[in-house]
Amino acid sequence: MTIIESIPNVSEGRRRDVIGKLVSAIEQTPGVRLLDHSSDASHNRSVFTLVGDAPSLKAATLALFDVAIAEIDLRTHRGEHPRMGAVDVVPFVPIEGATMDDCIGLAQDVAATVAERFALPVFLYEEASKNPARKNLEDIRRGEFEGLGAKMVSAGWAPDYGPATPHESAGATVIGARMPLIAYNINLNSDRLDVARRIAAAIRHSSGGLRFVKAMGVMLEDRRIAQVSMNLTNYQKTPIFRVFEMVKREAERYGISILESEVVGLVPSAALMSAAEYYLQIEGFSADQVLESKLRADGQA
Amino acid sequence: MTIIESIPNVSEGRRRDVIGKLVSAIEQTPGVRLLDHSSDASHNRSVFTLVGDAPSLKAATLALFDVAIAEIDLRTHRGEHPRMGAVDVVPFVPIEGATMDDCIGLAQDVAATVAERFALPVFLYEEASKNPARKNLEDIRRGEFEGLGAKMVSAGWAPDYGPATPHESAGATVIGARMPLIAYNINLNSDRLDVARRIAAAIRHSSGGLRFVKAMGVMLEDRRIAQVSMNLTNYQKTPIFRVFEMVKREAERYGISILESEVVGLVPSAALMSAAEYYLQIEGFSADQVLESKLRADGQA
Repeated sequence: MTIIESIPNVSEGRRRDVIGKLVSAIEQTPGVRLLDHSSDASHNRSVFTLVGDAPSLKAATLALFDVAIAEIDLRTHRGEHPRMGAVDVVPFVPIEGATMDDCIGLAQDVAATVAERFALPVFLYEEASKNPARKNLEDIRRGEFEGLGAKMVSAGWAPDYGPATPHESAGATVIGARMPLIAYNINLNSDRLDVARRIAAAIRHSSGGLRFVKAMGVMLEDRRIAQVSMNLTNYQKTPIFRVFEMVKREAERYGISILESEVVGLVPSAALMSAAEYYLQIEGFSADQVLESKLRADGQA
Repeated sequence: MTIIESIPNVSEGRRRDVIGKLVSAIEQTPGVRLLDHSSDASHNRSVFTLVGDAPSLKAATLALFDVAIAEIDLRTHRGEHPRMGAVDVVPFVPIEGATMDDCIGLAQDVAATVAERFALPVFLYEEASKNPARKNLEDIRRGEFEGLGAKMVSAGWAPDYGPATPHESAGATVIGARMPLIAYNINLNSDRLDVARRIAAAIRHSSGGLRFVKAMGVMLEDRRIAQVSMNLTNYQKTPIFRVFEMVKREAERYGISILESEVVGLVPSAALMSAAEYYLQIEGFSADQVLESKLRADGQA
């Protein structure tokens, strides 16, 4: 069975009726399951988590664009979260029975279809990107909707698909493929925000740390606890246990220990299994030794 | 969906035709899947791993008894492994959507039916046992088939179901319910078998250690490595990480470190997840945050 996950981010988090139409568009697509959705009024943004095979996800994404382009006008859209499109970003993520190449192919297919059907510029990102300078979502989105017209005529910012200028009301969309993202936080046994920030700087990729870690130091004001808040963007290449051990070691430098860690939202089983294997020093372990995997691999009666 | 596992042990590991009939008896029962089976000629014993719901497993177990009682005669059976019945032992194990009480009920139901249909004495064991002195399989089986007649007339050894004397050719059967058993070995960075034995004695329940650990020290002759070889009989109450840490600490006492550990055969996902949670100090984690569990819990399309 092929399972690909998609997590479209849409620039509407306030109007209940529009959010309802977006949900219906996904739920009414055969072969797709909506696992989760959340809308944030201050961000004015909704995030949907859906799974299915490639053709079903393509159909659901197109249905989502139908609603979003009809209902959302970025010229009047306000919200705290950066955005440049009515459908702002659509990642495809391999979960089971699908490779990264499958997801790259799906991203390209959906991008080409969306660009043509809606006369919308589309940028490819992450693993689907054909240009190293346009791999990172933040780089592509910098300037947001308001700066998009000027950005697209500057050197190197023609879209991968669709017209050379922004869609009047829907801007442009970023579509791509990536590994599952793990939201992972480590709370220090301390209220020293400066230490959390220094640890974040030490471990994150952008300032010299681990390749697939994004990190920042934040303060949990209600508990007076400093937190290293992270996104792990490829748990296979930068595993969770290595991140934990590095944060722990950096904290020791300041005489601070780790209070606890926290996985926010969903996490692939393999990401935690690998931590068990690491700490228990398990050799020669295979995923099909996991009872539940074995039951599924043999097929349901 | 209800998934119960059963691991019948049958006293035949040599005759291919009989083993084939045992496999067919299981495979032809609707609603049951045979996940694994292995036959050992020197033990003269076969072990089957099957899953299904309670009615299907009952049907498969009765089909297995039909073959075993027709084909196996313990009066001429020889093998290294202790045994007292043609079908020697049948445990039922809760995996998914089933409780221990469900498995105890199933064990009692199967035991009563088997006893009546085959005029066979049946002893209940482990969680299904009604008698603390008859909880442990080794205690029930002590004396084996050859000593069974004398044992059953001694005080406290009347069977739970069936006739008061052994079945002429098929002996008696032990049926019960237990938690999934994890076969877990830790290899020491040393060839000192005496240390492996002392560690085994320190950590196992029978000599004062952890409640749900069986352990012995053995030598891996080909690698010249001493091993602490264990069965973990309740991974929820005596978790794998606590066993690992205790072995590690005991080994340090002799200046010896752990080379590696090894999970033999199948392991429930939760047993490894709990190790990840422990070492990563993850707070507030819920099993439905595991992506694959979430996908299953929502039901397959």
